[in-house]
Amino acid sequence: MNKPSIPKGTRDFSPAEMAKRNYIFNTIKDVYALYGYQQIETPSMETLQTLMGKYGEEGDKLLFKILNSGDFIGKLPSEEFVSDNVLKLAAKICEKGLRYDLTVPFARYVVMHRDELQMPFKRYQIQPVWRADRPQKGRYREFYQCDADVVGSDSLLNEVELIQIIDTVFTKFGINVQIKVNNRKILAGIAEYIGQPDKIVDITVAIDKLDKIGVYAVNAEMLANGISEEAVSKLQPILTMSGTNKEKLKTIAQTIATSEIGVKGVEETRFILEKVEAVGMQNELQLDLTLARGLNYYTGAIFEVKAKDVAIGSITGGGRYDNLTGIFGMPGLSGVGISFGADRIYDVLNTLDLYPQNATQATQVLFINFGEAEADFCLPIATKVRAAGISVELYPDSAKMKKQMAYANSKSIPFVVLVGENEINQGKVTLKNMITGDQQLVSAEELIAIVTPN
Amino acid sequence: MNKPSIPKGTRDFSPAEMAKRNYIFNTIKDVYALYGYQQIETPSMETLQTLMGKYGEEGDKLLFKILNSGDFIGKLPSEEFVSDNVLKLAAKICEKGLRYDLTVPFARYVVMHRDELQMPFKRYQIQPVWRADRPQKGRYREFYQCDADVVGSDSLLNEVELIQIIDTVFTKFGINVQIKVNNRKILAGIAEYIGQPDKIVDITVAIDKLDKIGVYAVNAEMLANGISEEAVSKLQPILTMSGTNKEKLKTIAQTIATSEIGVKGVEETRFILEKVEAVGMQNELQLDLTLARGLNYYTGAIFEVKAKDVAIGSITGGGRYDNLTGIFGMPGLSGVGISFGADRIYDVLNTLDLYPQNATQATQVLFINFGEAEADFCLPIATKVRAAGISVELYPDSAKMKKQMAYANSKSIPFVVLVGENEINQGKVTLKNMITGDQQLVSAEELIAIVTPN
Repeated sequence: MNKPSIPKGTRDFSPAEMAKRNYIFNTIKDVYALYGYQQIETPSMETLQTLMGKYGEEGDKLLFKILNSGDFIGKLPSEEFVSDNVLKLAAKICEKGLRYDLTVPFARYVVMHRDELQMPFKRYQIQPVWRADRPQKGRYREFYQCDADVVGSDSLLNEVELIQIIDTVFTKFGINVQIKVNNRKILAGIAEYIGQPDKIVDITVAIDKLDKIGVYAVNAEMLANGISEEAVSKLQPILTMSGTNKEKLKTIAQTIATSEIGVKGVEETRFILEKVEAVGMQNELQLDLTLARGLNYYTGAIFEVKAKDVAIGSITGGGRYDNLTGIFGMPGLSGVGISFGADRIYDVLNTLDLYPQNATQATQVLFINFGEAEADFCLPIATKVRAAGISVELYPDSAKMKKQMAYANSKSIPFVVLVGENEINQGKVTLKNMITGDQQLVSAEELIAIVTPN
Repeated sequence: MNKPSIPKGTRDFSPAEMAKRNYIFNTIKDVYALYGYQQIETPSMETLQTLMGKYGEEGDKLLFKILNSGDFIGKLPSEEFVSDNVLKLAAKICEKGLRYDLTVPFARYVVMHRDELQMPFKRYQIQPVWRADRPQKGRYREFYQCDADVVGSDSLLNEVELIQIIDTVFTKFGINVQIKVNNRKILAGIAEYIGQPDKIVDITVAIDKLDKIGVYAVNAEMLANGISEEAVSKLQPILTMSGTNKEKLKTIAQTIATSEIGVKGVEETRFILEKVEAVGMQNELQLDLTLARGLNYYTGAIFEVKAKDVAIGSITGGGRYDNLTGIFGMPGLSGVGISFGADRIYDVLNTLDLYPQNATQATQVLFINFGEAEADFCLPIATKVRAAGISVELYPDSAKMKKQMAYANSKSIPFVVLVGENEINQGKVTLKNMITGDQQLVSAEELIAIVTPN
């Protein structure tokens, strides 16, 4: 018999890992709810018709496809089964695939349920997605996304709110972050200003890498993509611009003053910065004119969050997009959303040791089992303590004391209860504090008072 | 463009449905945690090697298989692609499948992580499973299971604890249930007593249907399966036995007194019934000697739960099994577990209208947006109210009052805030109770005091 294994790029989550993950998801959920976002869930499987063509050619390849049940061959002639065009062939024997992100299923959801939805529709969704990427450190084939989006409202107050949500979440985590903001319309204005409006995609793709590869390589990439030397040269002061948000905004406003779309981007950004300043933030909000974000469906504000004390890349991102649902035949619906990177946040919290103790602690009291008579005495007491909302275990077997204490230690249980003849005669129990080693003889009610977490 | 759809047998969950589902899952989770069970998660995909052959021939067919990424044909000759043996062929182009239940992945988990686990290991797991069943009312191709199991302990206190968990969960839900208990060893004893020990599987499969098809059809099925008329006749008093748990246990103990395994089953059942009685229960525990449960891997106690006020079949089940991990080469590990049927519990709670109001209510206060100046005034107040833990929305657009009120109504928001020139001048807001219609002019602090849910 072969040793069991799990598919590469997937993970088991142990109780300790789950406790930490739940802490992350619950914190994010609570803040989303505080702002009136409501949870939805969509099926893990979508039709390939829904998924194909939405993530580019590479995305189509990275979709996990589900083989049709039963006779998946049917009338397909066996000559078709050659390696020439496996993607096309796959579509003939598979009609479903696993969700690749939460955005396309959300768009599909909005279109299918348009008649039930009250706009603006504020939803959040925390579910796994699957990608047949080559597994590597920190990249998995199954991972969770934590998205919030509001659709059906063009108001920039939504952007302000999402920035507040980001600020609140990371304040709760205790992670110091820098929230970067920019606007695709400003980038379009810049492309016009340097005389290359048609090269906006190449420009954004290049400057998106500024942090990683540096200004020299970014310039080289733009030149290689046919952007003129003059244009690249005109771009340099923008790439290296420093100063406060207000100073930068003033400079860029002057620079791209002749671009209609650029001016619009400046106005939007000014609105967002002013409102955010008015409500106050715990974390720093920085206008970064080189923030581009790769995804080309963004059309307005874009956000990105970096941890200040750990070098790990972006841990949250988002932006405004137009026409989310156009791909499904429902045009004109604008939206704005964010997505927290749970796996990276997990790593940051681990690195900085920021998990609160009660997030990872489970059982509060273990009743040691010395035999049937003692267990009989403990059973109703354990039940009473649980009724007070306290997590309690009675060790099921009258195993050796050493083994039972090892169990308590392995689960970091802070209190154990010891019951022998003496305790039974007095109708009380001996409560031992596992940290201090203190022992005291107490009633069930006293026990509850002592072990109740603050 | 085609209208988007979702794969048959799958579901979208709306905000209202999610709120109810979260209430169910959170209630179950909280009770599991109260008894020291810890959550784990396993990947949605398992290797087909892990899954195949674990659920019988029919199960192998109902597994959703995932097409290998990239060139899934490789060197497979095209002559192999015929409908003759699609299951064997599927295994050549697919090496992964979707989880079919939580038990096999749990067994695989225990074997893979045996060196990290402290026994007894008490875990719970709430995740979706997938089955390519023919979709029908109440049966889905993707649905959640909510399992708790303890492995590595033979103690019957685990059975007692699981019955307490069932009792606590349904008490919290407010669903009146009958918890039925029996023991596979008693069934084996009965099979010996009626002279057909080799027919135990046929007997249990038949009497498992007693509730559905009645005693006449059960008898007919047994006779058709080669069980003698004499044996069927000897079985009748057992099938129709009435009385209290104690009376039934006494009668069956006498009836199967010569069966070693039967006596063992009676002793186990007596222990469980006595301990459960000692701790006290809210719901009725009934010894049902005809309870068989289809799954043949159970070897000791078996449980089943029925709602008393809704006819919907079993809403929870479970039992003791030996050798969970033997299929993965790790023998000798016994366990006992239960599984709550979330979809059916959802239906019962709906039918009886038992959801608590706060389970389904989201936003507590909506700030009506009368324009930019008013929104500017509201923004920091909304932020302050959220800081007090209250869910607040500021309507993002200064839309018509009617539209904004319709939004509040559609989300069942109990309070709205109205701010005009008068309020701004006084530094206060008008708070309207949407249920009573009452309005009052209040400060931010007063607002918080009024809207805080009890």
